[in-house]
Amino acid sequence: MPDGLVDAFWEYERALMSDDVPALDRLFAPGPTTLRGDANGLLVGHDQISAFRSGRGGAPQRRIVQTHVQTVDDDHALVIAVTELERGGRGQQTQFWVRTSDGWRVTAAHVSVPAPAIDTRIWRVIGDPLVAPTGSGPLDGESVAVKDLYAVQGQRIGAGNPAWLADARVEPVHARALELLLEAGASVRGITRTDEFAYSLAGTNAHYGTPPNPKAPLRISGGSTSGSTSAVSLGHATIGLGTDTGGSIRVPASYQGLYGIRTTHGAASAYALLPLSRSFDAVGWVTRTPELLRQVAEALLPAGPRSAASELVSVPGLTAIASEEVALVVDRYAAEHGAMRESWDLSDLPDWLQAFQTLQAWEAWQERGAWVAPRLDELGADVRGRFEAASLIDDARAAAARRLVDEAGARIRELVGDRVLMLPSAASVAPLIGEGLDAVRTANMSLTCLAGLAGLPALSIPRSTRAGLPVGVCLVAGPGRDRDLLDLAIDLG
Amino acid sequence: MPDGLVDAFWEYERALMSDDVPALDRLFAPGPTTLRGDANGLLVGHDQISAFRSGRGGAPQRRIVQTHVQTVDDDHALVIAVTELERGGRGQQTQFWVRTSDGWRVTAAHVSVPAPAIDTRIWRVIGDPLVAPTGSGPLDGESVAVKDLYAVQGQRIGAGNPAWLADARVEPVHARALELLLEAGASVRGITRTDEFAYSLAGTNAHYGTPPNPKAPLRISGGSTSGSTSAVSLGHATIGLGTDTGGSIRVPASYQGLYGIRTTHGAASAYALLPLSRSFDAVGWVTRTPELLRQVAEALLPAGPRSAASELVSVPGLTAIASEEVALVVDRYAAEHGAMRESWDLSDLPDWLQAFQTLQAWEAWQERGAWVAPRLDELGADVRGRFEAASLIDDARAAAARRLVDEAGARIRELVGDRVLMLPSAASVAPLIGEGLDAVRTANMSLTCLAGLAGLPALSIPRSTRAGLPVGVCLVAGPGRDRDLLDLAIDLG
Repeated sequence: MPDGLVDAFWEYERALMSDDVPALDRLFAPGPTTLRGDANGLLVGHDQISAFRSGRGGAPQRRIVQTHVQTVDDDHALVIAVTELERGGRGQQTQFWVRTSDGWRVTAAHVSVPAPAIDTRIWRVIGDPLVAPTGSGPLDGESVAVKDLYAVQGQRIGAGNPAWLADARVEPVHARALELLLEAGASVRGITRTDEFAYSLAGTNAHYGTPPNPKAPLRISGGSTSGSTSAVSLGHATIGLGTDTGGSIRVPASYQGLYGIRTTHGAASAYALLPLSRSFDAVGWVTRTPELLRQVAEALLPAGPRSAASELVSVPGLTAIASEEVALVVDRYAAEHGAMRESWDLSDLPDWLQAFQTLQAWEAWQERGAWVAPRLDELGADVRGRFEAASLIDDARAAAARRLVDEAGARIRELVGDRVLMLPSAASVAPLIGEGLDAVRTANMSLTCLAGLAGLPALSIPRSTRAGLPVGVCLVAGPGRDRDLLDLAIDLG
Repeated sequence: MPDGLVDAFWEYERALMSDDVPALDRLFAPGPTTLRGDANGLLVGHDQISAFRSGRGGAPQRRIVQTHVQTVDDDHALVIAVTELERGGRGQQTQFWVRTSDGWRVTAAHVSVPAPAIDTRIWRVIGDPLVAPTGSGPLDGESVAVKDLYAVQGQRIGAGNPAWLADARVEPVHARALELLLEAGASVRGITRTDEFAYSLAGTNAHYGTPPNPKAPLRISGGSTSGSTSAVSLGHATIGLGTDTGGSIRVPASYQGLYGIRTTHGAASAYALLPLSRSFDAVGWVTRTPELLRQVAEALLPAGPRSAASELVSVPGLTAIASEEVALVVDRYAAEHGAMRESWDLSDLPDWLQAFQTLQAWEAWQERGAWVAPRLDELGADVRGRFEAASLIDDARAAAARRLVDEAGARIRELVGDRVLMLPSAASVAPLIGEGLDAVRTANMSLTCLAGLAGLPALSIPRSTRAGLPVGVCLVAGPGRDRDLLDLAIDLG
């Protein structure tokens, strides 16, 4: 055993147990190549590791039950420890120690602890399965992560808010969409977290936390179909059933690198689905493959003829709403697939967006205002702010917004015509956890509101930036052309 | 980058993806110090690692998305890779590579992959919580893992068998024991796996697998309260509610190093609890601390006066039924606490055990025979064998067994008197997974049947062998003296 290594090991262990961040920072080697990995991902560089430590409020209490040392030479050794957590279970810690002029330092650490019984950031209830299939068909063997807005027979609807859940009745029947999936052979894995009442695109639920984004570990999940998307990203389920009012499928699909579809407004049944804004709410889902994305549509959408191949069109003024790295991906993808570039007059877009948000807010207040008004303190700050603003919208303003929504919808359907519009699914890659989200929300909705205003189907295809972060390319087509988009997503590959 | 390391890394990756066990065995350094750890524990030595590889049927398909190399010198390097699993999510692999005369070899590997949504070896349904408390009291903040024999309102009873589950009704009310826990402030975390119909002490459910034993990773969990015990071991829940007919609390508590109590027969309500053998079935639970073990009793057992301190007695002829390493622990513990050694005439013990097993089997057949008879093919081999034997027991044999059970019970109550008997909770440490279990079962039941025959409370205290494996020391007292045992367990420390 090299001199001083044992002392350094125990010094580290003591510092960890007392959350002595300066000591932990000191015992990890400085510089950009130091590594620390756990179930939440690999941190690269001392700065990232130090930021993580400062934020987490200490490691779980544990004791060391086994150690194994592989000594390379007087200055290098690998130390593997088996840990036993006070809260239960065993873990493992692998550390590579290097002796520097300042003493022994860890250059790489890999930490495992037992996973929790249930990741409550993603799930509220889960079973093996929670609901068995009622039939057999194209979805045999598939499992569904159900956003906590759909009725599951025998369960309550939680809608992302604990007070709502506490008041909720036990649902007497399944939501129609769920019933159709069960008949087609799928089982229900469980009920997933959503932003409160689906009134956010972030996934940063104030009560249950932010679900993980496995391909972008330090970044938000996107929402409001946050739990279902993370569940599919992690392989917990194969189908993430959700809703999309103003981007709640497209944004998380884009942030997490999944396929996702928002269906034509009204095409899939919203029966026994808690509404946010009935003028815009649409059933949607995310999957890891375009084939399964289409297979789900066979169960949920009315049969209909396919149209012939569609011309692709991209609009530089829309793509430019996105960040440079996202625009680059979308432009390259559009060019690869021969999309025609076309200029649209977008001078009304800010007004359209405002009309969308006004009508959405007014409708949300009609649906939830009576319950929410005396319970504003039980909402997260972001959703609370939206409901407070919604409460101030009078009927006249809502009626004016509806007129503009109708007008904008008609104009957008005309612009898209029988073509397929290609635009960014979201305006940026997933923001880092803790970043401000107001500007992100406005930019996202400037893009997503188009399909919402016009009631159009929109499908997000996963691509990635040069740095490896997920980006969604969105396809939008005329009303009822969901299947054309689903076929196209497979063709485009 | 040292010469040849990259090639070796990719050679390993290819071998892993094609489950080329000889190549994997070759690329891991020979000898007893090579290490491989994952969520199931740390394997020490090339032999253990090789046995694991041969048994698992390949690693999940994945691709490498990042690699980081820390080079020590021409012959030593640490390689950290971020993996992306085909089924979803990201993992990490840390390998220490050493160049030997035969080429590059891994001397230590640490592998992490995303945990499944639900560990189906432990749980059938789980929630956050599955059932909220209905009151507030001494169990505020505690969470219960409920053995899948207790009715949970709105859920089915699965009893460890998928065909039974498929036939089961939705339960209209909670089991009484559960109701009391909820009133005392506990929540239900979920419903846990059991051996089929609780008719085993092993936990090796043929349909759902063997729950993990965190303190003894290569060993069985013990059963039939297998899932609840693993859940508490892992910190998934704080209270593991189960049953003990012939050792189904004491054996898993012993194998996993937890506190566990089998209550006096009839003392705690068995209402809405699926019976196995009503003459012996007793409510029981496991916890990580003796204090919580006692707190649960406050909710579940009738109030009653405590007796004065009891004399401890140990019986060499009983301790000797256990393996040497277990007997050593029990003898040492008995000596430490001043237990009196006493010889009992145990010549009838084999007959008593047989009477116990006969009556248990006959009652089990009365309860389940009608359902089981046409469905023997839907049972695991062990439980099937027991039911087949049970079907052959005629009423006369059962009546004779009952007479001997009554006689033995009276004799045991007399022998124990107002003292506390100290004996092994189980006859051995947890057997290795895959070991034959028939002899183990007989030895276990020779010990556990005493409390069963006499309807006595029995409490298992966790100790460990010199090698660090869990062992239970069992305290047995007269009927109704559950609280004395619970107090004593705290006093003994």
